[in-house]
Amino acid sequence: MRSTAVNAELALLLEVAAAPTPGNVDRERDLAELRFEHFLAGATGARDGLAIAADGGAVGTAFERAIEGMSKQSGGNTQFGSILLLTPLVRAAADGELSPAGASRVVEGTTVEDTAGFYRAFDHVDVRVDEPPSEGELPDVRLGADAVPELEERGLALSEIMTVAADRDGIAREWVDGFERTFEAADRLAALDGPVLERAAATHLWLLAGEPDTLIAVAHDETVAEEVRDRAADLVDDDGSPRDLEVVRAFAVELVERGINPGTTADLLAGGLFVALERGEVSV
Amino acid sequence: MRSTAVNAELALLLEVAAAPTPGNVDRERDLAELRFEHFLAGATGARDGLAIAADGGAVGTAFERAIEGMSKQSGGNTQFGSILLLTPLVRAAADGELSPAGASRVVEGTTVEDTAGFYRAFDHVDVRVDEPPSEGELPDVRLGADAVPELEERGLALSEIMTVAADRDGIAREWVDGFERTFEAADRLAALDGPVLERAAATHLWLLAGEPDTLIAVAHDETVAEEVRDRAADLVDDDGSPRDLEVVRAFAVELVERGINPGTTADLLAGGLFVALERGEVSV
Repeated sequence: MRSTAVNAELALLLEVAAAPTPGNVDRERDLAELRFEHFLAGATGARDGLAIAADGGAVGTAFERAIEGMSKQSGGNTQFGSILLLTPLVRAAADGELSPAGASRVVEGTTVEDTAGFYRAFDHVDVRVDEPPSEGELPDVRLGADAVPELEERGLALSEIMTVAADRDGIAREWVDGFERTFEAADRLAALDGPVLERAAATHLWLLAGEPDTLIAVAHDETVAEEVRDRAADLVDDDGSPRDLEVVRAFAVELVERGINPGTTADLLAGGLFVALERGEVSV
Repeated sequence: MRSTAVNAELALLLEVAAAPTPGNVDRERDLAELRFEHFLAGATGARDGLAIAADGGAVGTAFERAIEGMSKQSGGNTQFGSILLLTPLVRAAADGELSPAGASRVVEGTTVEDTAGFYRAFDHVDVRVDEPPSEGELPDVRLGADAVPELEERGLALSEIMTVAADRDGIAREWVDGFERTFEAADRLAALDGPVLERAAATHLWLLAGEPDTLIAVAHDETVAEEVRDRAADLVDDDGSPRDLEVVRAFAVELVERGINPGTTADLLAGGLFVALERGEVSV
């Protein structure tokens, strides 16, 4: 049996290796400034932080440490969202209950200390975020550690931050909704046949066809996110498998040319891979 | 700065990602039963063992633990030789002297306890080895832990085992010769321009053109190993860079079709990548 920390890092590696994953860096494709090796370094760098959660440590501490390690490469933000999704799942596995209920218990148990770790993580890397949702509602995450005094004064638990962010951010939504799509992705990975990277690529397209990607919505707008979702839906057959990989590859080229990067979908795949690995439902 | 353990794992990941690396699994190519994901899992699995050496632990203990972790995937032996090369280098880095002299000091400091760890590692994975060199000279490595009583009785240090193996095995030769080709590979990686994976692929071909690969010699024979070396030499120009990557790719296809796997060359590249990463001579 692999350890939980190994499975968490391996999930990050399998996610970036799966191909084709249209619009994302994968085994077949780099983006202009963001290359495959940046993700390899990001995953290895995240390991020690993920291991803190695997040892039962605090979510905020584990997350900040993982992001600090991830950021020690020159590509910029590679796996911020994936690590934000993985950290409570790893902690739930450490607590012996890797399930929607177990992961939700981890979320509900977060405190303002976890919020401080989450904000501090933004000091390590530039993350593409929307403007704060409304004047004064929450401190801007881009303040990083400078926001901590206000966060402490207001006593905001990380679960509360995620609740506010959930309408715009697909990872925050997972935190709030019992990691519904993550566990669905894990079930799908388990149900498919073939080598894990083929299953992972099929699951990426299925996730992309399921809901508009929230990173696309932030970087472009809702209309583009919905168009990509609809286009992806046309590429999967009734049981959700890719119809024709060459057409998927052409779609991948188009998305890269248009600068469209469905990063949230990649994050959900990483989360699903972790759950499926940890449960022994996919093997490598 | 990345930690030494992170750099060691990252070296394994960059090695398998570099492409084209003719005859080896890489970002562009799987072998029939040995796929890219097996190497990703092998590298993540090796991390905790490599971390033992990075913390100044015994080479034999670190090596066995790394091989045990590496072996937790279904592809079989992915990185045995790379880890055998990396372990004393990681320990030398931990001792503050990652140089031919520092690495040789680690080798000279090995004891029969390290030999026991080395033999025990063979219990975790099938490694392609020659028949023992001559009747009774050394216990067959395939005995694994069963050889330990005899090893202890004879008090054989791991450096002595490597000295015997050095005429047939390119990794043992590195142990004995101050890791000469490993440090040359690191210098070459440092001297080249461009992204690290391009440099790594160029260095793989340069290593392949330099000496007959000892894994090819074991799996086939010396003649095949020399033919591959000569063919590789025809593919590099006077300064040792690949002339034409498409021709290199055709050579890669040919080697895979002929079942020729220059595994020792890949191991040397992994060692060179570690040294270059650790010295800050290549960046990711």
